[in-house]
Amino acid sequence: MILETSEEEQEGIVFVAGDEDDGDGAASFFGGEVVGEVLCPPYNFSPVGKGIYRSGLPGVENIAFLETLNLRSVVYLCPEPYPEAMADFVRSKRIRIFQFGIDGSKEPSVVIPIDAIMGALRIVLDMRNHPVLIHCKRGKHRTGSLVGCFRKLQNWCSGSIVEEYIRFAGTKARINDLKFIETFDMSCMSHCVLGIIYRYHGGCGSQARRLIYRDVS
Amino acid sequence: MILETSEEEQEGIVFVAGDEDDGDGAASFFGGEVVGEVLCPPYNFSPVGKGIYRSGLPGVENIAFLETLNLRSVVYLCPEPYPEAMADFVRSKRIRIFQFGIDGSKEPSVVIPIDAIMGALRIVLDMRNHPVLIHCKRGKHRTGSLVGCFRKLQNWCSGSIVEEYIRFAGTKARINDLKFIETFDMSCMSHCVLGIIYRYHGGCGSQARRLIYRDVS
Repeated sequence: MILETSEEEQEGIVFVAGDEDDGDGAASFFGGEVVGEVLCPPYNFSPVGKGIYRSGLPGVENIAFLETLNLRSVVYLCPEPYPEAMADFVRSKRIRIFQFGIDGSKEPSVVIPIDAIMGALRIVLDMRNHPVLIHCKRGKHRTGSLVGCFRKLQNWCSGSIVEEYIRFAGTKARINDLKFIETFDMSCMSHCVLGIIYRYHGGCGSQARRLIYRDVS
Repeated sequence: MILETSEEEQEGIVFVAGDEDDGDGAASFFGGEVVGEVLCPPYNFSPVGKGIYRSGLPGVENIAFLETLNLRSVVYLCPEPYPEAMADFVRSKRIRIFQFGIDGSKEPSVVIPIDAIMGALRIVLDMRNHPVLIHCKRGKHRTGSLVGCFRKLQNWCSGSIVEEYIRFAGTKARINDLKFIETFDMSCMSHCVLGIIYRYHGGCGSQARRLIYRDVS
């Protein structure tokens, strides 16, 4: 085991050069003086994995932050039209909105439509759509259910999936969402795609793990 | 604004080919039959940004998952020796452990040492150490404080920094940690490094934002 103190390493840090010029958007610090605007992520924002993010509904106050993500697409899980306030941003950045309208009601009779989750998962798994932001309204239930199914595809144990769901849903966690994730049948994904090979988590080396789906129909 | 339904996109998904062979560790699904082991992330695990992760203390039950991250280094924030149970894994993967011992006590008299946080931040900011896992024992207070300072360097607004801290600390959130983050003086970073240019969030295009530090001493 290599154990190193900070002191041993302090001499090791050198410039890690970028390959672009600064651009107007660079957040720069010169001797502690902050140059550049303060960035506000949307509520419940978090990275999910390489090229995949989650959050609640973004507003105009989040646009400067969202620009830093260089989003190529958004998976929007609400049935309502996409907020007009975001239209200019989305249009100017040529971000594709993939909408899968899911009722956000907490009524026990309202069930999450499996087709919407499967469709959304296919967009999320397709690296051509990355970087992608998954969001609903609060980033708790619909987004949490989708991410839970994604984790299941990543072979995460159920305890960790539940832990992550609750971290975002907090006291608003819904047993129906957890049941949905638990009963989500991964084999259904094989019926809607001929094949997806998806590399995740630092997938640039030979040790990278991948998810492999193959059609069996 | 481009609005597209799932149906319109279903024909668009094709193979996204990987460039490696499967390897023994690939988690594969053939018609729903899961081939490969179930992966258990450490408690409070989450990606922080590109090449940066956070969690609580990992154990042997988390090793299969940690292997998927292809870690190059660990920033360990506890004063205790690194767990012997992880020694074989860390050694075999040549993962470098950077230890910054911070007292985890909740006593108000115990303050977070600024030098430890600065040293840890320098390791986290140095892309040569990526992928890097930041962890303490529970992934709440010490890790939360470090990530909070990191977010401050990323220019996140204070509300979002607090929101993220609380998401992991939950009911165990400590006002002292939040005060530490709030009063963390970013200018101190300029005194310990000649210069770091750090690109974050999908930094492979000209729109990528960067953090820039320059020595003013």
